[in-house]
Amino acid sequence: MSTLITNLGSLVTNDPSLGTLTDAAVVIDGDRIAWVGAAAAAPQADARFDAEGRAMIPGFVDSHAHLVFAGDRTAEFNARMSGQSYTAGGIRTTVAATRAATDAELEANLTRFIGEALRQGTTTIECKSGYGLTTEDEARALRIAAAHTPETTYLGAHVVAPEFKEDPAGYVELVTGEMLDACAPHARWVDVFCEQGAFDGDQARAILTAGAKRGLIPRVHANQLHHGPGVQLAVELGAASADHCTHLTDADVDALANGETVATLLPGAEFSTRAKYPDARRLLDAGVTVALSTDCNPGSSFTSSMAFCIAVAVREMGMTPDEAVYAATAGGARALRRTDVGLVAPGARADLLLLDAPSAVHLAYRPGVPLTAAVWQDGVRKV
Amino acid sequence: MSTLITNLGSLVTNDPSLGTLTDAAVVIDGDRIAWVGAAAAAPQADARFDAEGRAMIPGFVDSHAHLVFAGDRTAEFNARMSGQSYTAGGIRTTVAATRAATDAELEANLTRFIGEALRQGTTTIECKSGYGLTTEDEARALRIAAAHTPETTYLGAHVVAPEFKEDPAGYVELVTGEMLDACAPHARWVDVFCEQGAFDGDQARAILTAGAKRGLIPRVHANQLHHGPGVQLAVELGAASADHCTHLTDADVDALANGETVATLLPGAEFSTRAKYPDARRLLDAGVTVALSTDCNPGSSFTSSMAFCIAVAVREMGMTPDEAVYAATAGGARALRRTDVGLVAPGARADLLLLDAPSAVHLAYRPGVPLTAAVWQDGVRKV
Ligand SMILES: [Zn+2]
Ligand SMILES: [Zn+2]
Repeated sequence: MSTLITNLGSLVTNDPSLGTLTDAAVVIDGDRIAWVGAAAAAPQADARFDAEGRAMIPGFVDSHAHLVFAGDRTAEFNARMSGQSYTAGGIRTTVAATRAATDAELEANLTRFIGEALRQGTTTIECKSGYGLTTEDEARALRIAAAHTPETTYLGAHVVAPEFKEDPAGYVELVTGEMLDACAPHARWVDVFCEQGAFDGDQARAILTAGAKRGLIPRVHANQLHHGPGVQLAVELGAASADHCTHLTDADVDALANGETVATLLPGAEFSTRAKYPDARRLLDAGVTVALSTDCNPGSSFTSSMAFCIAVAVREMGMTPDEAVYAATAGGARALRRTDVGLVAPGARADLLLLDAPSAVHLAYRPGVPLTAAVWQDGVRKV
Repeated sequence: MSTLITNLGSLVTNDPSLGTLTDAAVVIDGDRIAWVGAAAAAPQADARFDAEGRAMIPGFVDSHAHLVFAGDRTAEFNARMSGQSYTAGGIRTTVAATRAATDAELEANLTRFIGEALRQGTTTIECKSGYGLTTEDEARALRIAAAHTPETTYLGAHVVAPEFKEDPAGYVELVTGEMLDACAPHARWVDVFCEQGAFDGDQARAILTAGAKRGLIPRVHANQLHHGPGVQLAVELGAASADHCTHLTDADVDALANGETVATLLPGAEFSTRAKYPDARRLLDAGVTVALSTDCNPGSSFTSSMAFCIAVAVREMGMTPDEAVYAATAGGARALRRTDVGLVAPGARADLLLLDAPSAVHLAYRPGVPLTAAVWQDGVRKV
């Protein structure tokens, strides 16, 4: 079964040899893209979809999200943005609620957010554990996530579990030992929150190295709130991505520029915590590959909208609209070491977002406006 | 025909005697709200809608939009946000395209944007002329707009028409004379862009006074780009609203606090032009009534999303989530001198937005995420 999508006013391919095409067409065959080119030269197909001049881009690749959780932190957000003090538990609230939830409740939450993201054009989404913080609860989170996405990340090292408050070394031992054993079968990636108050450079190194020995590829929550060793450690260990990258020294930027690690920027977090934005321009000018992701989580960034992240990245982080769209598609794919998504080219997965707009620039030009006209995932029209 | 909407997890009424209710219900009868109260005490109705714990607010009242236009300014936006110079026409591009468009083209554009806004929960929307700048084209814009909204604003004084570049006084004469005669029958409001490079205080006074003599109520584009006389003139003339209010002196704030003029803030404009945001906190603390609106237009703010404006107002302008939601509903109603919209109370128009979230705080907490679950307008379910 093949489908010709034609009359595309604009088509962002992210393929260097194809570029951005006008008056373009795409042929889907099964779950893959079979042909890309000028509408006038398109081959026949079993079915035909008229895009009526709309723009198409690769489906968004959201390479950083925390979607296995339960509980509600609306009051905490409301207090923070209202300038009121709030003494309740922060992340500990989510950990307690997640532990108390049934598998079915966690899965219902997860699928709701994945569906919400899909309706906004996200066809690949990463999902981390990190709200269980026991062997059983971390493994459960990853088992549930793995049923819905191949991009699962073991983040037992999100924070030190409350039970180990007085014994962080003991928690690192758990995370690198029994918990890792239980989680590795369900995860592709290992991640650590390398930050003051979470895990320091030595602890992060131990956790990432242990994960790598079990076949998990490192990625790192690095330099979000302060300068620190996270970014350079990520590069040194060959991590796929260093995420946040808000507080960077010149040496950090140099390391990223000379390494293979993607800088994944998460403007939703800075938006929702009134924090300083990362400087995407500095990274791009240094030659670093940049990805944009949502960081979707109930504490610091409860958006699932990649379009919103693009708009904020253009407003606040010095990205051009084209760079931001690239970062939200090809950049995310690079951060997940995927060559089959984030581009529109023959052989790539048929993950496609048709916009209710004549160009991808409108994702920044029309902030907040839902612009999803249609979404294909694995060649199947989902929206 | 009456409908009971029940099982509302939260209901923002904007009615001082009702406040924000939990476990609430609303009864619609015809185009009006017949009853509001606790779900357990709700009366019978012909039909029943189960909100399943979702939150409801009054439909958004967008009191500032420019929706009668043609043409495309994507390249201008893209150049501005990419740090490139762009020498093409700015607003003159839109004026030329609008003049060249057919009535049907303008109406199709207008209804597309009104529909887009409705799908995002906007049930009342103001619409200005201002891209015609000839007697015929301004009157045409207002005639087309008046077929779709009662809130039509004569903005012949958007900028001096290109034909009068060397004779701005002549243009003011036109705007206060023949053009006003042609436009007044189709408009409720008269507006002027009081700004350096547009119309000064004396010109603005002449235009607003002439409009008022024809029964049009003043509103003013005031103090957007610089300090100036706009805000104090608006208050002096009893304008319903002073819009933008980005550059205010203490005397401006005092005037607003002691007058009846609403301060309408338009964060989409500052977002899309990388300009300084207005200080809503300062105005609220002084006792000024604040409205939030989109300023939807293709040049400086191409969003139709009131939810986006709420999120930005909370992030950047010192508003609490509750204040921002109030400003986007009751505030807009006040800026349009409407007592039948912007609230959920017996007798009010049945314009209602059901959110796909348990509270209205989520409009700021979940930026960019489409949260429309259902929309009623004049008692009819539209979304
Ligand atoms: Zn994260
Ligand atoms: Zn305006």
